[in-house]
Amino acid sequence: MLRPREGETQQDRDRIVNLSDGVFAIAITLLVLDIRAPDIPQRMVDSQLPGALLSLWPNYLGYVLSFVGISAFWLIHHSIFRSITAYDRVLIYLNFLFLMVVAFVPFPTSLLGEYGDHQLPVAIYAATLAVGRLLLTAIHWYASRNDRLMDEPQDPARVRFFLIRGLTIPAIFLLSIVISFFSVGVAILIWFIMLVVDAVVTRRRFR
Amino acid sequence: MLRPREGETQQDRDRIVNLSDGVFAIAITLLVLDIRAPDIPQRMVDSQLPGALLSLWPNYLGYVLSFVGISAFWLIHHSIFRSITAYDRVLIYLNFLFLMVVAFVPFPTSLLGEYGDHQLPVAIYAATLAVGRLLLTAIHWYASRNDRLMDEPQDPARVRFFLIRGLTIPAIFLLSIVISFFSVGVAILIWFIMLVVDAVVTRRRFR
Amino acid sequence: MLRPREGETQQDRDRIVNLSDGVFAIAITLLVLDIRAPDIPQRMVDSQLPGALLSLWPNYLGYVLSFVGISAFWLIHHSIFRSITAYDRVLIYLNFLFLMVVAFVPFPTSLLGEYGDHQLPVAIYAATLAVGRLLLTAIHWYASRNDRLMDEPQDPARVRFFLIRGLTIPAIFLLSIVISFFSVGVAILIWFIMLVVDAVVTRRRFR
Amino acid sequence: MLRPREGETQQDRDRIVNLSDGVFAIAITLLVLDIRAPDIPQRMVDSQLPGALLSLWPNYLGYVLSFVGISAFWLIHHSIFRSITAYDRVLIYLNFLFLMVVAFVPFPTSLLGEYGDHQLPVAIYAATLAVGRLLLTAIHWYASRNDRLMDEPQDPARVRFFLIRGLTIPAIFLLSIVISFFSVGVAILIWFIMLVVDAVVTRRRFR
Repeated sequence: MLRPREGETQQDRDRIVNLSDGVFAIAITLLVLDIRAPDIPQRMVDSQLPGALLSLWPNYLGYVLSFVGISAFWLIHHSIFRSITAYDRVLIYLNFLFLMVVAFVPFPTSLLGEYGDHQLPVAIYAATLAVGRLLLTAIHWYASRNDRLMDEPQDPARVRFFLIRGLTIPAIFLLSIVISFFSVGVAILIWFIMLVVDAVVTRRRFR
Repeated sequence: MLRPREGETQQDRDRIVNLSDGVFAIAITLLVLDIRAPDIPQRMVDSQLPGALLSLWPNYLGYVLSFVGISAFWLIHHSIFRSITAYDRVLIYLNFLFLMVVAFVPFPTSLLGEYGDHQLPVAIYAATLAVGRLLLTAIHWYASRNDRLMDEPQDPARVRFFLIRGLTIPAIFLLSIVISFFSVGVAILIWFIMLVVDAVVTRRRFR
Repeated sequence: MLRPREGETQQDRDRIVNLSDGVFAIAITLLVLDIRAPDIPQRMVDSQLPGALLSLWPNYLGYVLSFVGISAFWLIHHSIFRSITAYDRVLIYLNFLFLMVVAFVPFPTSLLGEYGDHQLPVAIYAATLAVGRLLLTAIHWYASRNDRLMDEPQDPARVRFFLIRGLTIPAIFLLSIVISFFSVGVAILIWFIMLVVDAVVTRRRFR
Repeated sequence: MLRPREGETQQDRDRIVNLSDGVFAIAITLLVLDIRAPDIPQRMVDSQLPGALLSLWPNYLGYVLSFVGISAFWLIHHSIFRSITAYDRVLIYLNFLFLMVVAFVPFPTSLLGEYGDHQLPVAIYAATLAVGRLLLTAIHWYASRNDRLMDEPQDPARVRFFLIRGLTIPAIFLLSIVISFFSVGVAILIWFIMLVVDAVVTRRRFR
């Protein structure tokens, strides 16, 4: 029932993209619900509020991290779907699986904000983003292999570059899980370095 | 006031589809709010967090189930509205009724996550999805009967296949309610089997 | 800065409609967050859950009422904006004012679900919907008076019919506030009757 | 990978705008979650509910303020993106940074609703809106400097006017932080005056 008919393909693709954008937009906006105004008796507000707000720093960190992480997912999703003009059920299923991970991100973020100085939440967070990134790589790989889904044949060098990057980043996330057993702070630092390097590498390569 | 005028039909249909996609996107993204970070004193985190996270498994199950269920609704909604090019008030009312069920899904999911080993929440969950699926069947049936709402006459075999499937699945959901009186686990298992079979049957038939 | 330039008008109007639809979709989907799974000790679930779920009936009622109310707002908004092809700042301000009321609806709904058998929440709820409806009437009235905002001159009889309806319904809502001092149940009943009559009258008139 | 290809630019720009509108719509609709129905024993509702609802006035104020603030952001974002027809990574990064602030607004709003008569929350609120406004100015400034991102060369007088306004308003917000040390009420009053003046000035200038 989903076989593309002439002239409908573009519109169908748009509906998938719109649904995905809705999930992206909601997931990044829900993150803020996890930063809650501290509960302080009125007469102690002036003395205690500054400290209470500062002690929420793992929540701010989690907010920024997940916002950046989901934004990066969106950018890659956007890059991939730019070239996709048709789709089949497998592509839709992969996309839904990916969206299930995106919509899940607020939970590990919440764990990180609550228990960010412990190993387990850091590992869960890294694993979630690694799986999300792998699913994006799978979507791209599947679509590239099926030329009829793309608007034009893909440049093999580009596909290879995307594949390598799409496997390296999850690998680094998984590596950060190993590191988190020794130092939680270093593991989180690695994520930030990776995000910056990733952005710079892409710009270099495709300027 | 909603009688379609020349050249506006497509755009109007798009606005209904957009609103529906918004509800779909929000409903699947809100599901995660039901998985809450457990509350553990800082010095016991290392010993108690793993167990606390594992004990949330009914919430994870509910998240996956409802995500799959709402995704399946979206896929069918998408199939139906692909062929719909015009609409009337009845169609809008049916669609709103359907969206009311979609937006309601997080509540039975929450019940399932909290009391998933009891009969009543399982029955409520099955009933909610059965009603949602029946409303989709009603939308398709109504639109197929009114050729002026569709872009082209529908293949009767296809309409019949869709109708049978659209009645079978709610019937199985209702059957699972009966079964839930004997075994809650078997009832939930049936939903999973049904989802897989449903996906495979569709692919076979319309490849 | 918002004066329409050739060929951009349609796209600009679309962005306003999209933002509005986003608010509509989120407002109706957030309503469910107000229906919370009751908190019952595991060993008493079987005996107490049915009663606890039944006692949530004011929340279910509020969910259905607000869903229907916001859907009705959407339908009217949709009718109005179908004919609007340009816009100015006043229209945008009126629309934002209207959206502020739509996004507010979950709060009176929550009050109604909690204290629905008392006069004040019923009055607040009626007042909120009355103000929302009045703003829709204001939007339509403003756009009709400025022919350059509409795609074609409006039929005066139609404009008058819309204006009368758009003032009658808020008036009935306000009347229901007076009635709520005597009987809360009758006030709520009036809303339901009004919604049904409203739907039927429109269909008659514009079949 | 994001270099615009012929005929795709418009569609790409639309996806950025759609994502932004999603974040706008959700941020303004989530604000209401901060106004919670007060918790009163059933037999005291009639006597205590009116007072309890009145005492929520800082929350209502915060709702209106943030709704107006985010709406103003949307209007300016809308003005800017009307003229933008292409984009590059810097523009996307700036836009995401801006969206991170928009999505954050519910938190300072929540603080303001809880502790609005204290200096710190007022300062945080003003700082958040100042940063958001500065980022919008940065987006406009960056896009204006790169003619290839705009549909036509920008009128320098207009660009200058926008730049001055886009620096004045954050400056006033920062000034209100200084004032908040002396009087919290005056600081909040200044925001309201500024919003009204801003709306009037724009209308005058571009009528």
